[in-house]
Amino acid sequence: MLDPNVYKILSQVNGPEDFRHLDINDLKTLCQDVRQYMVDVISEIGGHFGGGLGTVELTVALHKVFNTPDDLLVWDTGHQAYPHKILTGRKELLPTIRQFKGISGFLKRTESEFDTFGAGHATTSISAGVGMASAARIQKSGKKVVSIIGDGAMTGGMAYEAMNNAGFLKSDMIVVLNDNNMSIAPNVWQVSNYFTGLITHPEYNRFKGYVWDLTGKMDTFGDRLRKAVGRLEHGIKAVITPGVLFEALGFRYFGPINGHNLHQLIKVFELAKDLNGPILIHTITQKGKGYAPAESHEQRLHASTPFDKVTGKAYKKEGAPPAYTKIFGDALVEIVNQNDNVVGVTAAMPDGTGLNILAEKRPDKYFDVGIAEEHGVTFAAGMATQGIIPVVAIYSTFLQRAIDQIIHDIALQKLHVVFVLDRAGLVGADGPTHHGTLDLTYLRMIPGMVIMAPKDEAELRDMLFTAVEHKDGPVAVRYPRGNALGVKLEPGFRKLPMGKAEEVTEGEDVAVLAIGNFVDYALKASEMLQKEGINPKIVNMRFIKPLDTELLDRVALTHKKIVTLEENTVIGGFGGAVAEYFIDKGYKNDILRIGLPDKFVDHGTQAELHEMLGIDPKGIYLKIKKFCESKNPVDEVVLNG
Amino acid sequence: MLDPNVYKILSQVNGPEDFRHLDINDLKTLCQDVRQYMVDVISEIGGHFGGGLGTVELTVALHKVFNTPDDLLVWDTGHQAYPHKILTGRKELLPTIRQFKGISGFLKRTESEFDTFGAGHATTSISAGVGMASAARIQKSGKKVVSIIGDGAMTGGMAYEAMNNAGFLKSDMIVVLNDNNMSIAPNVWQVSNYFTGLITHPEYNRFKGYVWDLTGKMDTFGDRLRKAVGRLEHGIKAVITPGVLFEALGFRYFGPINGHNLHQLIKVFELAKDLNGPILIHTITQKGKGYAPAESHEQRLHASTPFDKVTGKAYKKEGAPPAYTKIFGDALVEIVNQNDNVVGVTAAMPDGTGLNILAEKRPDKYFDVGIAEEHGVTFAAGMATQGIIPVVAIYSTFLQRAIDQIIHDIALQKLHVVFVLDRAGLVGADGPTHHGTLDLTYLRMIPGMVIMAPKDEAELRDMLFTAVEHKDGPVAVRYPRGNALGVKLEPGFRKLPMGKAEEVTEGEDVAVLAIGNFVDYALKASEMLQKEGINPKIVNMRFIKPLDTELLDRVALTHKKIVTLEENTVIGGFGGAVAEYFIDKGYKNDILRIGLPDKFVDHGTQAELHEMLGIDPKGIYLKIKKFCESKNPVDEVVLNG
Repeated sequence: MLDPNVYKILSQVNGPEDFRHLDINDLKTLCQDVRQYMVDVISEIGGHFGGGLGTVELTVALHKVFNTPDDLLVWDTGHQAYPHKILTGRKELLPTIRQFKGISGFLKRTESEFDTFGAGHATTSISAGVGMASAARIQKSGKKVVSIIGDGAMTGGMAYEAMNNAGFLKSDMIVVLNDNNMSIAPNVWQVSNYFTGLITHPEYNRFKGYVWDLTGKMDTFGDRLRKAVGRLEHGIKAVITPGVLFEALGFRYFGPINGHNLHQLIKVFELAKDLNGPILIHTITQKGKGYAPAESHEQRLHASTPFDKVTGKAYKKEGAPPAYTKIFGDALVEIVNQNDNVVGVTAAMPDGTGLNILAEKRPDKYFDVGIAEEHGVTFAAGMATQGIIPVVAIYSTFLQRAIDQIIHDIALQKLHVVFVLDRAGLVGADGPTHHGTLDLTYLRMIPGMVIMAPKDEAELRDMLFTAVEHKDGPVAVRYPRGNALGVKLEPGFRKLPMGKAEEVTEGEDVAVLAIGNFVDYALKASEMLQKEGINPKIVNMRFIKPLDTELLDRVALTHKKIVTLEENTVIGGFGGAVAEYFIDKGYKNDILRIGLPDKFVDHGTQAELHEMLGIDPKGIYLKIKKFCESKNPVDEVVLNG
Repeated sequence: MLDPNVYKILSQVNGPEDFRHLDINDLKTLCQDVRQYMVDVISEIGGHFGGGLGTVELTVALHKVFNTPDDLLVWDTGHQAYPHKILTGRKELLPTIRQFKGISGFLKRTESEFDTFGAGHATTSISAGVGMASAARIQKSGKKVVSIIGDGAMTGGMAYEAMNNAGFLKSDMIVVLNDNNMSIAPNVWQVSNYFTGLITHPEYNRFKGYVWDLTGKMDTFGDRLRKAVGRLEHGIKAVITPGVLFEALGFRYFGPINGHNLHQLIKVFELAKDLNGPILIHTITQKGKGYAPAESHEQRLHASTPFDKVTGKAYKKEGAPPAYTKIFGDALVEIVNQNDNVVGVTAAMPDGTGLNILAEKRPDKYFDVGIAEEHGVTFAAGMATQGIIPVVAIYSTFLQRAIDQIIHDIALQKLHVVFVLDRAGLVGADGPTHHGTLDLTYLRMIPGMVIMAPKDEAELRDMLFTAVEHKDGPVAVRYPRGNALGVKLEPGFRKLPMGKAEEVTEGEDVAVLAIGNFVDYALKASEMLQKEGINPKIVNMRFIKPLDTELLDRVALTHKKIVTLEENTVIGGFGGAVAEYFIDKGYKNDILRIGLPDKFVDHGTQAELHEMLGIDPKGIYLKIKKFCESKNPVDEVVLNG
């Protein structure tokens, strides 16, 4: 129960039906309550914050005017949807957001009937909205559809494809452009320049100056002509204001509108509600609105850890090892400084990928293409044809957007492009939309691809170097979200032998073939096993493709029992590769494949999720123990818990 | 050697250096020669035809003005690039185009230094061009970059992402928009409407009428004002002509220009060559230009079989069974007529997918989203949230563009969307850019996905019905390009049991588990094996996911030797699924996995390619025979030849 003395209106609100009838002053109070509540809760637990503070009035106005959940609000990526969650029956659950077993940080259909479409990856809302509007037309349901999209997401090609299609279909839908001139990183792309800049088009200003000049000189017709020109100006303005881009795509344009003026928002939504055809409402909002530390420090508060409510300063964690992200960012700068041909490419994630370090130190070798993974990959291909070596840093989950470009534009042409996949494996609080659980599979199917995963940060540095030096087609390096192990870093880089594993420990009872971050888990499980008298051989495979078949041939002879260990789906990944190899060679060893299950995994900390799935060191130890102790072991072990 | 009496100039031309110096009249003759030569050759052998006839002058002008191959021409999809091939040293090879061991129908880097970027999938040229321009800037090479893109490809989101990025980077590059108002199917999307329609913007015409009206009434200032208004009009025109869309994205716009006026083209390219920053040159061309049957019958000649040179009529093949494409199209119409909730969705491939039949019979249930696979899939997801059942028909190779949308927008939300993948497996003459060799792998990794492949056209009908009736998440049906088997079709549909295989024949020596079109090959191979006294059990697996594990458990007991057979990469596909299952269960059978190799396969007829890879019925027979006869069989069989 929220304290009615602190949250006067919000404490009474359990859904839109509780505030739709309120007058404008009470609604404004409700907005204050929502904002205060977000600051109170999120400062304690962390979370995506700035986006939601910017959409409070927008959210109240939308739920007031539209008959949700019958009418359909489609939010594009959930960061902006915290107020929506608070106002649609989930306010008491806000303290659980992004926590294990708590509510999701993103929209989620299974969580609420008000969440019409799940959204973790950007730029999906208009496409989904066009689909819903087409359904409403077929079903004659009369449902209204409103897609709410940020200016950052608007740089994604799907938005253009969808608007184009909506224009052609004359879809009855509204797109609300939530323009805070700020996607995750400040976005400086053309479309976004366009929104803020076109009103000052020189062509228009030249025209205007000329006309006033001309009419000022005329005596007889002056008044009449000035009036006429006023009308002309109006007409021309309609053509060259930001609307033109959208009107070209078949949308009717309203705006720009102050997205924090509740009265104005309600008015324009009421108007638009009864119009047919595609409509775009352009609202200008401020990220972090109403909370001074967030307003002045927008980017850091995009995804915040817990912080001091008054100063906005994050509470510090002491003594943790550096993040893989930072290790990569620093290493890339070193390599760029040594090799004139190397550049870095990101898709609107400079901080998340560590490329912010390159952006600062070597802006001449840094490219941020916007939320545009497809273009980013083919852009890199174009550079590679000229002998440039692009290092494309994109999260594992977002690289799913550009698989065809990797296949068709890079691998087929054997172009040397390096892919660096941060956030491979389970990512934690962001949950299933962001888990990077498939990359070993989708990269392994591509002919000629080289795929590596480092066991620690020192190996990450060497793998990045090896990838840049490997001048024979595409190479990928994947590693998890979060802190590295804290091992000592040697100066410089070492080139690793292609497709060769590292034999870490010897042991006769079972061979554990591990990849990437799970080498560390294998070593920890090994300690527990040794206490039980089971001695495993631990291999750091390093390469998923090409596989170290020479090592596999040896291990097949020396070890009856073999375990594969990866943080990727067991379908077609590293364990799949080993299974295929053993089958193809006719080897009859017993193999236990440990990895991620063939299902979507919810959010929680990485440690919580690993434990839940039985793939933390203890879970791995238990699985291997059972495997070693059973006679016909494999079918007595329940795969992945 | 080309006959100099027939091809006066072309016979002398082996590369751009042979015609750059020619005067305009000789260049015009060269254009005639190229056009004539294309008609002469392609009428004999078939090929993509209309697009190339439209770009003859464009190609001559580009190679005249730009210093190719140092300057970089980037063609978007190769259909328009036949003249480019003819004029860059490959005229003698044109008769081999799209033939086994002949030159490719698309751009191909390994074929010529003039082919700067391979292109089979649309909408890649601007992205690649931006990359090349960035490389030229870093390398200070002074190379000019020209991307040539059709209006159809311009509907793809990557074009927008790329132009946006070029505008931001102020890339020194030229985009030539080859606007024939016709992609593969007539394109009716907004952007394309925009190109042809904006010049007649009512706002502009209202303004113009008003101004002339006003100045006509004035005596004293009339002349001066009319002159002034002329300048205003010019200014306004600059703002509201088609240029505005591109100028909004940061491009300088020239056009529209008659793309068959060689003189004008050369002039504008000469001008643009020396300008900095991104430039868009809008040319209007006619597909099939200069060849009457192609001009009047544009769509059919997109990818033509051999035809009569005079009438343009294709030579008929007699008595072939219907194509899978047609079977699917007819079946979908039947289902749509029975079930009000079912709709069809295609991405600019109505004819290629068979959805043209739906478009004709039930336009109310037909959606063509443009060359926009990503949007198309998420659009379907939006419909599915409302209880509509979208049947999304996209070629296997093009669905690679929307894998993230299948994962994130459909599977994660367990939405019921049916995917129909035509052109799965090797497609023949279109070659590696179009082969559908990966879909079983990329679909199988997705949790909750159901994947089927029919053994013949009767089963395709039942599978489509089963997919539509399966109301529990996404379902895919995949089948090959080309003609079905000619089996009898029963009226109506039968729902197949989920995840259950069909045991086709009994035999004790080896169990052959086949999927899709390779069931037929298995039966043919089986006949040959039986003549040698080897009796195989043939299983039509029907489902790749979920696997029929009950059947696999039985076969593991009854058959020591098992073969898997699929037209998909052996990496992580159907054979991979069986390998993983047998490993996980600890079964020790010998398994031979036959499928496509882990490499890119060139073009040729499907039969030629199957034979080359040893996966035609005879090749399969030989592999299985060797497998059955050897003692420790598997490692004596060279996998996939």
